[in-house]
Amino acid sequence: MSRLPEIMADRAAAVEEELTRLLPVDDCPEVRLWQAMRYSCLNGGKRLRPFLVMTSAGLFNVSEKAALRVAAAVEMVHSYSLVHDDLPAMDDDDLRRGRPTCHVEFDEATAILAGDALLTRAFELLGDPGAHTDPAVRADLVTELAKAAGGRGMVGGQMVDLLAERDESYGRFMDVNAVTRMHQMKTGRLIGFSCLAGAILGKAAPSLRQALSSYAHDMGLAFQIVDDLLDVEGDAAEVGKTIGKDAAAGKQTFVSLLGVERARTQAEMLIQQAVAHLKPFDREADLLRDVAQFVLTRRA
Amino acid sequence: MSRLPEIMADRAAAVEEELTRLLPVDDCPEVRLWQAMRYSCLNGGKRLRPFLVMTSAGLFNVSEKAALRVAAAVEMVHSYSLVHDDLPAMDDDDLRRGRPTCHVEFDEATAILAGDALLTRAFELLGDPGAHTDPAVRADLVTELAKAAGGRGMVGGQMVDLLAERDESYGRFMDVNAVTRMHQMKTGRLIGFSCLAGAILGKAAPSLRQALSSYAHDMGLAFQIVDDLLDVEGDAAEVGKTIGKDAAAGKQTFVSLLGVERARTQAEMLIQQAVAHLKPFDREADLLRDVAQFVLTRRA
Repeated sequence: MSRLPEIMADRAAAVEEELTRLLPVDDCPEVRLWQAMRYSCLNGGKRLRPFLVMTSAGLFNVSEKAALRVAAAVEMVHSYSLVHDDLPAMDDDDLRRGRPTCHVEFDEATAILAGDALLTRAFELLGDPGAHTDPAVRADLVTELAKAAGGRGMVGGQMVDLLAERDESYGRFMDVNAVTRMHQMKTGRLIGFSCLAGAILGKAAPSLRQALSSYAHDMGLAFQIVDDLLDVEGDAAEVGKTIGKDAAAGKQTFVSLLGVERARTQAEMLIQQAVAHLKPFDREADLLRDVAQFVLTRRA
Repeated sequence: MSRLPEIMADRAAAVEEELTRLLPVDDCPEVRLWQAMRYSCLNGGKRLRPFLVMTSAGLFNVSEKAALRVAAAVEMVHSYSLVHDDLPAMDDDDLRRGRPTCHVEFDEATAILAGDALLTRAFELLGDPGAHTDPAVRADLVTELAKAAGGRGMVGGQMVDLLAERDESYGRFMDVNAVTRMHQMKTGRLIGFSCLAGAILGKAAPSLRQALSSYAHDMGLAFQIVDDLLDVEGDAAEVGKTIGKDAAAGKQTFVSLLGVERARTQAEMLIQQAVAHLKPFDREADLLRDVAQFVLTRRA
């Protein structure tokens, strides 16, 4: 039986500890900001992205300390994106993981600033010698993360998603290609960076860098298709959020475009493809194979 | 007579061109985001921060191309901070430089995302070889900019400023030290980075790095005191924003704490100090001396 759940839990705990260390709360006048930054990051999540950073780094004998630092930075970027996405002007969500969202627990202005500060802190950490002794590696991490998270990546994808929701004439007519591109930007790019980060830290050969990127690409897309399936078939209590939200919003999803069965087949095929990309790593990459299966079979 | 106005105008035009180049608008689905990013950056401002980057870089024979790239990145960070500060949940401003603010011209969600994307783009540009051939310089620029802009810098200062405005029990009792610290974080740190950037790009000796930082520290504080004086004494048409806003909000300013005369004397003294720090650069730093005088005598 796979030891994946146990190892994921161990690494999630290590990331939680690193995040706590990297987001110090002291007696300064701006303490409220740092409290909101912590609140948004420390939520006992699965920490999929940090797990991918640490596991891909493990393929290249990267020091655990460096991998953990980069893993925490990626999680800060993921957390900032959720804080801003939850804002009233965006998705207007009150709950996340069963807790009040940042702007509900604090206030809107604090949530905007906490997101800004988390994003900035992530880049500070990647530029710092603590991330790697070789500055070329650090500069590479910075630029690749910025590409994945910026206006042609995560933020660009969120813009398209919002337009699809608000501009019916646009959203209703998105086809599979358009929906795929949107998700690839919105969630795929940061998952891709998480896998790539290990290869950058380990100064991997270009072919291995590419193999990990391809793995992440297919796995990330499967992740999103499963998300859409859970939105239709999932159990609200298990998934931890409102079910049927996409359909109610009239948004095109992989399920609305392909139907449940073809969507599931597509996800399975993508996971097979993702795993095939791991061939050069042999048994060393078994954990990444397990994660791919986990993405497919998850219930939440 | 100083050639400062002419040189500032030339450099502002060069930065405008570089920003246009670095924020391409094409036919992609997320084009609205890039339009908003451009709108927020291209506004014909004085470009004080880019000017400081380029002028400090000029002391160390840095290539103009590299300096211009870093100058544009700093301006993106400055612009993002204004877009987010103007949001309804923050200062709720409808006008900036006589034009509708980003969230008025577009919408709130687009403004939040445009700010996020500008900040991310700035780091992407600093990590990229286009900023400097030496990756150690790029990593250093990234970390120093992040420190200046983050939760212990610009964003932290904005948090304190908001608390002072909203929590009377806090704001009313801020003393000169607390107000100084707040402004040093909110505006001083990014002005400081702008001067430091030239020294980083030019791999300057630590003593020269320190001299520029000290110059920026004193000049930045004088800049803020003059801002407070203009809020009381300025001409609304010239200043280009509502006058007397701080007093109306019951906020402590250098003028409310020191009075007009002592505030002016303080600003003059700081500018003298700032100029004194430039001694090691001899006549090479005349433009920075002129800028210091400009900061003191500006009417807007």
